[in-house]
Amino acid sequence: MADDSTPPSAQLAAVTLSDDASVLKAEFSDRVLIRSIISRPDGGSGLAGQKIRIGGWVKTGRKADKDAFAFLELNDGSCASNLQVIVKADKYDLGQLVQTGTCLSVDGVLKLPPDGKKQKVELDVDKVIHVGPVDPAKYPLPKTRLTLEFLRDHVHLRSRTNTISAVTRIRNALAFATHSFFHKHGFLYVQTPIITTSDCEGAGEMFQVTTLFSEAEKLEKDLIENPPPSEADIEAAKLIIKERGDDVAQLKSAKASKQEIGAAVAELKKAKDNVLKMEERSKLKPGIPQKDGKVDYTQDFFARQAFLTVSGQLQVESYACALSSVYTFGPTFRAENSHTSRHLAEFWMVEPEIAFAELEDDMNCAEAYVKFLCQWLLDDCGEDMQFMADKIDKTCIDRLTMVAKTPFKRITYTEAVDLLIDAVKKGKKFENHVEWGIDLASEHERYLTEVLFQKPVIVYNYPKGIKAFYMRLNDDLKTVAAMDVLVPKVGELIGGSQREERYDVIMSRIEEMGLPAEPYEWYLDLRRFGTVKHCGFGLGFERMVLFATGIDNIRDVIPFPRYPGRADL
Amino acid sequence: MADDSTPPSAQLAAVTLSDDASVLKAEFSDRVLIRSIISRPDGGSGLAGQKIRIGGWVKTGRKADKDAFAFLELNDGSCASNLQVIVKADKYDLGQLVQTGTCLSVDGVLKLPPDGKKQKVELDVDKVIHVGPVDPAKYPLPKTRLTLEFLRDHVHLRSRTNTISAVTRIRNALAFATHSFFHKHGFLYVQTPIITTSDCEGAGEMFQVTTLFSEAEKLEKDLIENPPPSEADIEAAKLIIKERGDDVAQLKSAKASKQEIGAAVAELKKAKDNVLKMEERSKLKPGIPQKDGKVDYTQDFFARQAFLTVSGQLQVESYACALSSVYTFGPTFRAENSHTSRHLAEFWMVEPEIAFAELEDDMNCAEAYVKFLCQWLLDDCGEDMQFMADKIDKTCIDRLTMVAKTPFKRITYTEAVDLLIDAVKKGKKFENHVEWGIDLASEHERYLTEVLFQKPVIVYNYPKGIKAFYMRLNDDLKTVAAMDVLVPKVGELIGGSQREERYDVIMSRIEEMGLPAEPYEWYLDLRRFGTVKHCGFGLGFERMVLFATGIDNIRDVIPFPRYPGRADL
Repeated sequence: MADDSTPPSAQLAAVTLSDDASVLKAEFSDRVLIRSIISRPDGGSGLAGQKIRIGGWVKTGRKADKDAFAFLELNDGSCASNLQVIVKADKYDLGQLVQTGTCLSVDGVLKLPPDGKKQKVELDVDKVIHVGPVDPAKYPLPKTRLTLEFLRDHVHLRSRTNTISAVTRIRNALAFATHSFFHKHGFLYVQTPIITTSDCEGAGEMFQVTTLFSEAEKLEKDLIENPPPSEADIEAAKLIIKERGDDVAQLKSAKASKQEIGAAVAELKKAKDNVLKMEERSKLKPGIPQKDGKVDYTQDFFARQAFLTVSGQLQVESYACALSSVYTFGPTFRAENSHTSRHLAEFWMVEPEIAFAELEDDMNCAEAYVKFLCQWLLDDCGEDMQFMADKIDKTCIDRLTMVAKTPFKRITYTEAVDLLIDAVKKGKKFENHVEWGIDLASEHERYLTEVLFQKPVIVYNYPKGIKAFYMRLNDDLKTVAAMDVLVPKVGELIGGSQREERYDVIMSRIEEMGLPAEPYEWYLDLRRFGTVKHCGFGLGFERMVLFATGIDNIRDVIPFPRYPGRADL
Repeated sequence: MADDSTPPSAQLAAVTLSDDASVLKAEFSDRVLIRSIISRPDGGSGLAGQKIRIGGWVKTGRKADKDAFAFLELNDGSCASNLQVIVKADKYDLGQLVQTGTCLSVDGVLKLPPDGKKQKVELDVDKVIHVGPVDPAKYPLPKTRLTLEFLRDHVHLRSRTNTISAVTRIRNALAFATHSFFHKHGFLYVQTPIITTSDCEGAGEMFQVTTLFSEAEKLEKDLIENPPPSEADIEAAKLIIKERGDDVAQLKSAKASKQEIGAAVAELKKAKDNVLKMEERSKLKPGIPQKDGKVDYTQDFFARQAFLTVSGQLQVESYACALSSVYTFGPTFRAENSHTSRHLAEFWMVEPEIAFAELEDDMNCAEAYVKFLCQWLLDDCGEDMQFMADKIDKTCIDRLTMVAKTPFKRITYTEAVDLLIDAVKKGKKFENHVEWGIDLASEHERYLTEVLFQKPVIVYNYPKGIKAFYMRLNDDLKTVAAMDVLVPKVGELIGGSQREERYDVIMSRIEEMGLPAEPYEWYLDLRRFGTVKHCGFGLGFERMVLFATGIDNIRDVIPFPRYPGRADL
């Protein structure tokens, strides 16, 4: 199980954050990480007296003691805490240093602060090494509290704020925990393609990837610079063929030398080639290439229509059906015109796939993985989680603890629907009508996990009518072996299923759903040759970050959010 | 340094591969990993007598002792080795089991083989749990040796071959080693965007991302199903406005009730709205939206042209200028019509970025990272590396060992050019002329690393004329603080630089190179506000896999290769 051994991160972190002063050795930089001071059990006090170099950005600064010195709160992004830095007026123009956003690299001596200060150690500056100044009149991120919405218009600077930098560290920890979990359990990371010519049926609208526009633009430019030959040009060139032909005939009848005839034949060939080229060029038309009134994708980069992937599942299945336990973790895309706080056009997904495994194994894996992530954050990101609890969502640490410790409730879809109908009978109001066969709405999912069970819930065995063709048909012939993991705060966090491994059954499902078989021939091959029971799931990575941090809008938990009308940078 | 501590992989692997029999506990599956048996120091012999379940695919099978039983070599992808499995004729139709590619799940007892066999343990089958058969007449991957080129036409099945599965495990190890290295050194993983509206100047041709084609298709379909109104339709609808207007006037002059007049006014409004809608609809034209004779990208999903990223560097710099040590590891794209064995349209890049650091720190980081990767493979992928040495490139293990142990040679570009000119004087022939100012060709790079120094070489301080605008100008005003890491077998493995942090200098470089400043305003902000010395590099992940495995063609070291004309699956 994931949660009953020392998390590997603790082992790794020990390398950087050992308890002695050797952490102060700089690596790939001439400075010491502020984290390596502050995150010590003694808060850094044991390092008093050490000479070090520090770099970072001023969070807040103020002059004191009649401008004799400045107190600066310096942050280098390695942790949420700042290091307090004291600069005397003879070292630098203090007015410049105190501006929020100023970059500073300084040499100094760590010392214990006067009694009664909250920090355990501070830095007394000997020498200012570097200053990257800020003109406060122009700086877009003043010290005042800024809304996350405002910050979305400054994605290139927003990582300098407390909230976004904490989210970045938590996101980083979740990514490393993900790789660590699957590595530990013998899963191989398979990078499934981003550009795809397959469609993971029903997953959503796709972005198209093309070079047709740029090729058309190039051609248009070229045709302006070198206009294609006119009919008259071609006729004139054809006349030259005739002349060259006459030359050859003349030389032959005059019994000229082989050399002379050879040269004339070469000239004739050149003239013919020239006309061919001209005719070819005269056919060029500006614009997107067309054939039979449609876009001619054989002219596109991949000689066919290509798209951005909506899921790596189908491709990663091909690896599971050879290497048994695999996962993909990469960007996926939806070209949906969604303006909600839960949707992005570009987002990251974690998709494991396990062979020789059934739905219960899938649920076990999903539960162990989510618990592992939660425990990792509790062990590794205490300071950032505390920041989130203080500023964003006071329940977030409790939520992680609860999920890490509590066995997930598992109920069938049919049971879930019965429970929801019961709730309605007892007076609960839902916007969406509940009956067997519906796709559960977010309000239903959140009711189950937040109100009814108050813990994570796995709902499994869904009606086949609302699920994809590749999910395994159960013996009741009405449901498929699908499962969703629902958690408080975000609702559906994971969706997965056992895949249909029986060739005949999947073929009839494809027919039943009116899908063309041809695009899935390769996928069917996995069932034709050495088929195996297998299952898998997908976790929306940004949903996991929302769940962990308590942030409300998904645009604030990915470094560069993409949504309709916006793709900054 | 990366190479002087226990690699974290050894710690992690210990969880999975402990030496006692507890490894035989199944996780998320009802079977035991073959790796957990074979990779024990005793080769599995200490497990003799244990009852286990195994799953995998038959590599080779043969019947023996007058068809009384079958010997099957079973592989589950967890390691290169197979487990020998013995099935008696009363358990199953042996003729079906011996076919290469058959999937099998069996219960059995591990036992010591007769003396003189190379395997340390084999499985005596009690019960056949599952068979996924193969019709050998139809199976595309027969037992005969298949070329890597042939396998490229079967990307969905090629992971079942020894070579591709070994490459997959090595690639997986390199990815995990990458995350482990940066995690250990306090770097945060920042997922830079795939869809971008920035261009990392000069990195190459870009793919465009669009929904214009699908929107045009939808519109065309819609216009056929619901043809837009004709002029006559609109005129008729306008007549109705007039009639409804007359109705209102009539009611008013007849002093009808407020209710009656209100109803008539509502009808009038409806008629007016209808005409507006019809007029709007009559303007719809099939095809790609145009404005002033050009494609109207304001109608596209992101309301402007959007592309697939060629590098995450510029974006990750914005995070380095806030969080100090960061890296990105993700897919990047080039729409170049390259048909070589070294280019892909979609490939993965690792790009760290370090603040408060100069070119020498950058070189130190690159060298430590490459050494760490090599040592990791030596420690963790011994069996797969041995397979590569036996079948693909007998020097590959020696190469890893050499790179892991040998300090990289560091020379300036000017020194490199002098050395190449010397070589030419001594009779060495290059296809490309050598003189100060040229971009080193692959033949030059490989000569330096493979022939002259016979170890990795870092060339630094390149002429500014051949490098990008963002590289830091040296004091000589002729060169920039760029560096390339060259290694035997692949040549350039890493390219990096210190970035120009001085606002005035980068502005004049942008002007000097004739680039527009507007698209880089956000990037310039990083220099306007709290600027910091920083540097970074990019490692082509597939190049690293080529280097490690000795495979010749880059299309064979990525699961689903994309190149001109091909994007299977």
